[in-house]
Amino acid sequence: MPELRCNPVTAQWVIIAGERGKRPHARAQSRRRRRAPSYLEGCPFCPGNEAQTPPAVLEVPEPDGHGRWQVRAFPNKFAALTPTPAPVTGPEGPLFVAVPGEGAHEVIVETPLHNRFPADWDEEEMARVVEAYQQRCIELLARPSTEYVLVFKNHGEAAGTSLEHPHSQIVAAPVVPQDVRLRAEIAEEHFRSTGRCLLCRLAEDELRAGTRIVHRDDRFVVFHPFAAARPAETWIVPLEHQPAFERAPEQTASAFGSVLGRALRGLRAAFGDPDFNYAIHSAPKAEADRPFHHWYLQLMPRLTRAAGFELGSGIYINVSPPEETAERMRRALE
Amino acid sequence: MPELRCNPVTAQWVIIAGERGKRPHARAQSRRRRRAPSYLEGCPFCPGNEAQTPPAVLEVPEPDGHGRWQVRAFPNKFAALTPTPAPVTGPEGPLFVAVPGEGAHEVIVETPLHNRFPADWDEEEMARVVEAYQQRCIELLARPSTEYVLVFKNHGEAAGTSLEHPHSQIVAAPVVPQDVRLRAEIAEEHFRSTGRCLLCRLAEDELRAGTRIVHRDDRFVVFHPFAAARPAETWIVPLEHQPAFERAPEQTASAFGSVLGRALRGLRAAFGDPDFNYAIHSAPKAEADRPFHHWYLQLMPRLTRAAGFELGSGIYINVSPPEETAERMRRALE
Repeated sequence: MPELRCNPVTAQWVIIAGERGKRPHARAQSRRRRRAPSYLEGCPFCPGNEAQTPPAVLEVPEPDGHGRWQVRAFPNKFAALTPTPAPVTGPEGPLFVAVPGEGAHEVIVETPLHNRFPADWDEEEMARVVEAYQQRCIELLARPSTEYVLVFKNHGEAAGTSLEHPHSQIVAAPVVPQDVRLRAEIAEEHFRSTGRCLLCRLAEDELRAGTRIVHRDDRFVVFHPFAAARPAETWIVPLEHQPAFERAPEQTASAFGSVLGRALRGLRAAFGDPDFNYAIHSAPKAEADRPFHHWYLQLMPRLTRAAGFELGSGIYINVSPPEETAERMRRALE
Repeated sequence: MPELRCNPVTAQWVIIAGERGKRPHARAQSRRRRRAPSYLEGCPFCPGNEAQTPPAVLEVPEPDGHGRWQVRAFPNKFAALTPTPAPVTGPEGPLFVAVPGEGAHEVIVETPLHNRFPADWDEEEMARVVEAYQQRCIELLARPSTEYVLVFKNHGEAAGTSLEHPHSQIVAAPVVPQDVRLRAEIAEEHFRSTGRCLLCRLAEDELRAGTRIVHRDDRFVVFHPFAAARPAETWIVPLEHQPAFERAPEQTASAFGSVLGRALRGLRAAFGDPDFNYAIHSAPKAEADRPFHHWYLQLMPRLTRAAGFELGSGIYINVSPPEETAERMRRALE
């Protein structure tokens, strides 16, 4: 029987309807990925083709000193936000509010190898990528126009990527998104009424319930949330209270890389290498010291597609109960 | 230069970034649709195959009295919500809130012809469909468990449909979605501070600005909203103040069908027959008499794909300014 579950972090309802009979399955993408070469001549993200991208804002060199890079970041050539302020749409009335698209939109190429996908990375490669994320966040947050930064990854065509070569993106925006604003209000209200951080509490309660846990260690818990909006949606939450991702200490950051690698391997093994997105939710700049924020990573496999009901109501229909998908992923990792 | 625009109805920001250089284009779907036959043997929605679906809750008969139907509605075989309440997930703690998935999920087959897609319908066919929408809404809203009803359509694979035969769906939910709740708060606040309905005001202001109007007549205005989240997103708003879609008088309802047909023909002509969703936003049951609600249809073509940034932040990146797409659609309709 279907049930409606409320996500305590967003206050959004989700319909868990396992009986709809659909089962997650990966698409043709996975086969295509397996055939990809380690170097592709036309790929602007492959080594040797750097001239096809804007100049780097970060290059992590190989330790041998030959000048090759291991990770490379640069502004997105087709940036959604740019550093230069520009005039905006004229004042047509109070209902038409616009601000200049000032900010940044960067690409982080995570490996020189065209076909080395995240689930293959060893701990060192993963740690380098996480460090690059943090460095770019810190620099972008230091800019006066930045109010909010999001690190995210689009993996595969169904997840909206246009280039196959492994990469993530960072956007620095001059406004705090409404969704982030609402999550913050809910978290603040929870803190005010209980004296506790909502995510700390949620991690504890998920651990106590136990049925949706994929992995836990000293520093992180990985679970499929009670009100997962999509099949195999996975959250990675630091057990220690930390509002801002970019401030996580080095040991936590490298443990995070290790646990993210594990989650991605689990997803590939249990669900047939699906396309996916992930996003790192972290405190907006002005609130990085507030006690109710707690960063986490949200991994969203693209096993089903949002349709008119989701777009119209904001309620997602999830055909795979998180208890089942978590067990499947846990077993695949054993 | 990109700019950030705020949607006054949802308070969500959108990045309008026409310079990203992408142009809307339709996918292979459109070709496939052109090849579809008028009757498909395996299609459960084609006449003669009624036994493959649950019993009808509505059948609009052909006027010749031979017992054939023109429009037919029945419960979705794979319903996300069902009329029978069921026990829900046990109480694992205050952060795990669930309610029974009690409600309804129905399919409305809009024509007996497998390949007669909405942009082809004449005024009479369109009026029949709108009338069926209203009838099903009225009946579902009369059930005690219903708090909110959404009529929506998924047209084409990219829009999440699994069956090609023209159909819409209706969901009756026992909760009011958070997104609907938030839109209502914004509309109520606008009403309180200005004494006017937000949608009435928005329709007026869009008409005054003029650059995003696709069509207007005595009863409706069709425009691409200032903060359109997707290329060619189209709103159809009744000019007369009406909180609830299902209560729209017959003349308005038939004019609505006519203007919806026009919008769909404009979309097909201007953008190469893309897949699309639409949803009819209307007051929740308990608020159908409140003066700040105003129903409208939101048409969402699937010309681009939401990726990690949209999923993570809730901010959409729209690569086609609504001023440009509205002009293109307006010209296609001339």
